[in-house]
Order: sequence, then C-alpha cells, then structure tokens
Amino acid sequence: MISDVGRWEPNARGRLEQAAMDLYEQRGYEQTTVAEIARRAGLAERTFFRYFADKREVLFSGGGELEQVLVSTVADAPASLAPIDTVTRALEAVGALLGQRRGREYARRRQRVIAANPELQERELIKLATWSRALAEALRGRGVAEPAASLIGEVAIAVFRVAFERWVDEGNRRELPELVGDSLDELRAFTAEVRSGAPAARAVSAAG
Amino acid sequence: MISDVGRWEPNARGRLEQAAMDLYEQRGYEQTTVAEIARRAGLAERTFFRYFADKREVLFSGGGELEQVLVSTVADAPASLAPIDTVTRALEAVGALLGQRRGREYARRRQRVIAANPELQERELIKLATWSRALAEALRGRGVAEPAASLIGEVAIAVFRVAFERWVDEGNRRELPELVGDSLDELRAFTAEVRSGAPAARAVSAAG
Repeated sequence: MISDVGRWEPNARGRLEQAAMDLYEQRGYEQTTVAEIARRAGLAERTFFRYFADKREVLFSGGGELEQVLVSTVADAPASLAPIDTVTRALEAVGALLGQRRGREYARRRQRVIAANPELQERELIKLATWSRALAEALRGRGVAEPAASLIGEVAIAVFRVAFERWVDEGNRRELPELVGDSLDELRAFTAEVRSGAPAARAVSAAG
Repeated sequence: MISDVGRWEPNARGRLEQAAMDLYEQRGYEQTTVAEIARRAGLAERTFFRYFADKREVLFSGGGELEQVLVSTVADAPASLAPIDTVTRALEAVGALLGQRRGREYARRRQRVIAANPELQERELIKLATWSRALAEALRGRGVAEPAASLIGEVAIAVFRVAFERWVDEGNRRELPELVGDSLDELRAFTAEVRSGAPAARAVSAAG
C-alpha cells in the first residue's frame, strides 16, 4: 500500500540513536559505519540519512533544540529579571529537558563515547561555543550591552559544563537543574572573594 | 664551513610566521602551502618543518608557552592568595606576554585568519579548553577542591576570551591585562546581582 521509500518506521530516530550508541560503545565510534547502525536498528540506510547527516550527528542532533530552549527562555523572561537570573533560568530549563528526554544514563554513555574521540570532543566544543554566542545574542536582544552579553554567555556555558560533568559523574544523585544552581552559587562565592593581591597597583592601573 | 642541513638561519621562526601570516591574509589559509611559506621566508621547506608540524601550527605554536605561563603563575603564587586572585594574576601574566611578544597587531591579523576558517576555529577552541584544564589542575595542586577548580578554570578562560576579543577590537586602546581586570570586575558585578526569580522555590530545592 505504501511504497518502501516512504514507509513510516515507528520511532526510527530513537532506534537509530540507540543502535548507534550501542555500537559506539561496543566497537568504538571510528569502527562503526552508518550501514551497521541502520542494520542493527532494523532500518534501511537511507532511513538513517533521513534523520542524520552522518554518524557523528547522531550524537549531536538534540543540540539545536536545546539551543532553541536557551534562546527562547532568555527572550521570554520578564524584562525585570537580571541577566544572571535570566541565564540561570535558561540553563535550568535545558538541564530539566536533558533529564526528561534522554536521561542521565544516556548522557553518561554519550559522554564516554565523546571522551574517547578527539573529533567528537571538537564537535562538542563547537556546540557549546555556538550556545554561548546564541545566549549573548539573546541577551543583547534584551538590551544587555557588550561586552557584558558575551561575558555572561561564555560564563553561563562554563557553569553549565561543570554542572553537566557533575551530573554524569557516577557518584552524583542530584539533578542537573540543581547542579546548575550549585555551580552558580559557587561562582558567586569565589568571585566575591576579596582581591588580596596588590590592590594599590590595580588602583594605579585603573587610573592610567 | 657549516653543512646546508644544519645551517642556522637568523630568526627563522619569526620569518616563517611573518611569511605565513602574509600569505594567509592575502590568499587565504586554505590556498597557502608550506612550500610557499618557506619560499616567501627565503628558507628551505625542511627548515619550516624544523619549527612547525604543519601550516596550521604556525598560528598555534605560542600556545604551549602561554599555557606554561598560566600554570607556573598559579603554582608559584603565594599560598595565601585566593583562587580568583591567583587566576587573575595568571591571566594578566599571559596578557602582558601576548602584548610584549607579538603585540596587538599580530593578534588582530591572527584573529581575522582564524575567524575565516572553521578548522582554525576548532583548533582555537581546543587550545582554550586545554588551558582551562591546565588551570584547573594547577588549582587542584594548590588544594582547591573539585568542582571549584574546574569551574574557576572554565570561567577564567571565558573571562580571558572576552578580554582578548576586546583587545583585538580596532577601537580599543586599553592593554590586555587591564581588559582582563575589567572583565573580572564585570563578572563580579553581574554575579553579585540579587537573584530576583523565585527565591522561595530555590530555598525549598536547597533544603531537599
């Protein structure tokens, strides 16, 4: 009734992701081919390419959606909210979504695969740099000036990375949004420490 | 008297860097070959490879030394210095060195070349991620616990990136160490802003 080319496969995306992750863990990312991923998922190779550009993108396909959540959370926040609170809200929203969608165990497996491959580490760094720029742009859209917008965007991603690392840590039971809050509290604490080094020199430098 | 293979070329590294930068700007990074860089510098191709692994590394050869300055500044700081002051000192040291060695104009040209090429942008992100990890390790060596050490390492690099962007901005006259200080002051200011969003919910979450 329906031609093979247009055949709808139930949860094809999820099956491909699962198959890819299994193969990346068992045989290594480099050794795995798209044909093998499709076969393991019980799908045609062309079905794979309907969802993903290549085997690398299986691990990064959710990134665009998460970036969108970051940006829209910042854009939709009340105008009265301070920039730091706005990005906190955005990071917590992304953290909650990561926990709900694929969960901590998926994140853990993904992290291990990425840690074993320099090309994937680069891709991850690029994703995070893109998020940082998107956050800065969203903040500028709320009237936050430069360089504050870029600084907050960069620092927010730094905070998120550390929270995420703690979240995927086997020994950790706290949820990602809480860990984001913890990291921000920690950031606040260490930046508030009084500068003990050479205050006089700083004052001169600031006046020069 | 001296064989050709071992011939010492005055300032070969600097000449190769200059020639590479000229060609990357004029013809584009992708279009430039190692043979052309060597020819323009008036040196043999094998001399190029004595200094650099490939044409990309010409743009990143100073990174290892700067990382070493970051790490040793942190390691050598007085034990009484707070972590934030320690990394500030390290970033200011790197900033001063960048200004003295190759200067702002070189940094500007390098930045333009990198901005035009995704592969170079990736390499730059990797360099900065490496610096962040090296800073975290140096902080752990001073007894700073995790996740604070990683957080401070990440945030320090975020601060440095923003300061560096401002430094290479045509309109900016301030020196890099000062701009690092400015970015840290700005970080301090925005993290100190009172969280205006849902304080009650946060309190409950912290207690849970």
